[in-house]
Amino acid sequence: MTVFAAEQQFHDAEASLPSHQARLACRAGLAQTTAGVAPGYIQGNLAILPETYAAAFHRFCQLNPKPCPIIGMSDVGDPMIPSLGTDLDIRTDLPRYRVWRDGELVEEPTDITAHWRDDLVAFVIGCSFSFEEALLADDIPIRHIEQKVRVPMYRTNISCAAAGPFAGPMVVSMRPLKPKDAIRAVQITSRFPSVHGAPVHLGLPQSIGIADIDKPDYGDPVRIEPDEVPVFWACGVTPQAVIAAAKVPFAITHAPGLMLVTDLKNKHLAVL
Amino acid sequence: MTVFAAEQQFHDAEASLPSHQARLACRAGLAQTTAGVAPGYIQGNLAILPETYAAAFHRFCQLNPKPCPIIGMSDVGDPMIPSLGTDLDIRTDLPRYRVWRDGELVEEPTDITAHWRDDLVAFVIGCSFSFEEALLADDIPIRHIEQKVRVPMYRTNISCAAAGPFAGPMVVSMRPLKPKDAIRAVQITSRFPSVHGAPVHLGLPQSIGIADIDKPDYGDPVRIEPDEVPVFWACGVTPQAVIAAAKVPFAITHAPGLMLVTDLKNKHLAVL
Repeated sequence: MTVFAAEQQFHDAEASLPSHQARLACRAGLAQTTAGVAPGYIQGNLAILPETYAAAFHRFCQLNPKPCPIIGMSDVGDPMIPSLGTDLDIRTDLPRYRVWRDGELVEEPTDITAHWRDDLVAFVIGCSFSFEEALLADDIPIRHIEQKVRVPMYRTNISCAAAGPFAGPMVVSMRPLKPKDAIRAVQITSRFPSVHGAPVHLGLPQSIGIADIDKPDYGDPVRIEPDEVPVFWACGVTPQAVIAAAKVPFAITHAPGLMLVTDLKNKHLAVL
Repeated sequence: MTVFAAEQQFHDAEASLPSHQARLACRAGLAQTTAGVAPGYIQGNLAILPETYAAAFHRFCQLNPKPCPIIGMSDVGDPMIPSLGTDLDIRTDLPRYRVWRDGELVEEPTDITAHWRDDLVAFVIGCSFSFEEALLADDIPIRHIEQKVRVPMYRTNISCAAAGPFAGPMVVSMRPLKPKDAIRAVQITSRFPSVHGAPVHLGLPQSIGIADIDKPDYGDPVRIEPDEVPVFWACGVTPQAVIAAAKVPFAITHAPGLMLVTDLKNKHLAVL
C-alpha cells in the first residue's frame, strides 16, 4: 500500500458512518447478529421478490402496516437503495441471507450476488431494534436483552389482511413488563409507527391463540415475573412467514437477527 | 311576566351555553348526577378549604397531578371562578355538596351560601367524564356506562406524595377493556393529562393492593369478561379521601357524581 492509499483509506474510515462501516464489514464477510451494532441507526428486515410477486407483496405490506412497515424499496433489478444509505448494496451488505424456493429454505449465504436477477425488487421493513432502543433510553428493562437471548416470537390467531398469494397469521414478539412500564411502553412505541408502533396485545396470550407462553414459535423463551404482564408487538418475522407460506418460486430474506444496518437514525422515526 | 321580560328570558336562554343552563338549574335546586349533562363540556371535582390549609393542599395537587389535576381555583374568599364559566358561583352551581368537619361528613346540602367564608379557597379538579367522552368517541365501550352504574373505585397501595397534613393512598377508577382497546385507551387518555391522563396500572389488581376486584371501595362493581383486562386510572376521589383523612376542621367537596359543569370544552384539553 502506498502512503497515499493508506492515507486515503484512513480518510474514508473517518468520513464513514458507523452504519456504513458495519455494512462494509458484512460485505467483507462478517456474518453475525447485528444486535447492538451501530447504535442509533435504523436496522431493517429484508424481503426480495421477483417483480411478478412484488406488487402483491407491496399491497400486503400496505394492508398490514403494523407487522410490515416498509422503510425502503429498491427499483426493479437495482441492488442499490441510496435512500437508506451511502453505497448500500442489498446483495452484499447484510451478514447473512436466506434463499427460498417454492416456500422451502434452500440456502443461507452471506452474499446473494450470484442469485441477483434483473426482475428482483427488495423491500426493507422496520424492525423492533429501533423501538427497543427508545424503551431502553426511557429506563424500561427488556428481558431478552438482560437474559442475552433472542426475543420470543409467536404465531397468533390474528389474521393479516390477504393480498394475492400473501396471507397468514400475524407473528408477534413478546416483552414482559411491569404494568406501569407497559403503559409507558405503549406511549413510547406509539411514536414509532414505522417500526411496528404500539403493541397489538397485552395481558392475555390465550386470547390471541398463544397456548404456551414458554414455547415461542421463533426465538427463545424468557422469564415472566408474577408482577409483570406479557406485552406483544407485531413482528417483522410476519412477512418472512407469509412469503414461505405463499410458496413463491423464488424469494430472498435476511437471516433472523442478522439485519440490514441503514444510515437513517432511529430518533428520526418518532412522529411526535 | 311582561312581554319584554319573556322576550328577555328567551334571549338569555338562546345566548346561554348548555353548561351555563345546567349550572342555573343546579342553582334553582336541581340535585341529580351530572353524568351526561351538557355533553362536550368539562366537569370538575370540587374541594374547598380554609386559606390556612389551601397552600398545603395546592402543593399536594402539584405533587400528585394524576389524581389531582387542578383545572381552576378561586381567589381567597371569592366564590366566583370566571375562568371556568360565565356567572359561575361555586356556592350554588353544583347539584349537591358535602360539608366536612374534622374529617367527618356532617351535611350534604344543595347550596353552601350559608357556609361560605371570607377565608375559603375553591379548587376544581379534572374528572374522568372528560376522558370517557374521548374513549366513547373512539368506539371504546365503557362497562359501567353500559351497566348504568357508578364507576368502581379502589384504594390502592400506591402512596400519594404528602404535603402538610395531606397524605394517603391513591384512589383509582377501573374500566375493564379488551387488550387492544386498553392499548388504544392508553393512547387516547395520554392526550388528556389535565383529566387524569394515561392509566396508572392495568392487568394485575393485586400488585396495587386491590384484594377483591368485585368489592370496590367506592362506586359499584362491574362485570369483567374473560377476554378483558382491568385498566386503572388515578381518580378524583383521591383528594376527597385525603381531605377526610387529614381531619381538617372544615372543608367542602362535591357529592360524588354530582360535579361542577364548566363552560370549557373537553376537546380543548387534548395536548396533541
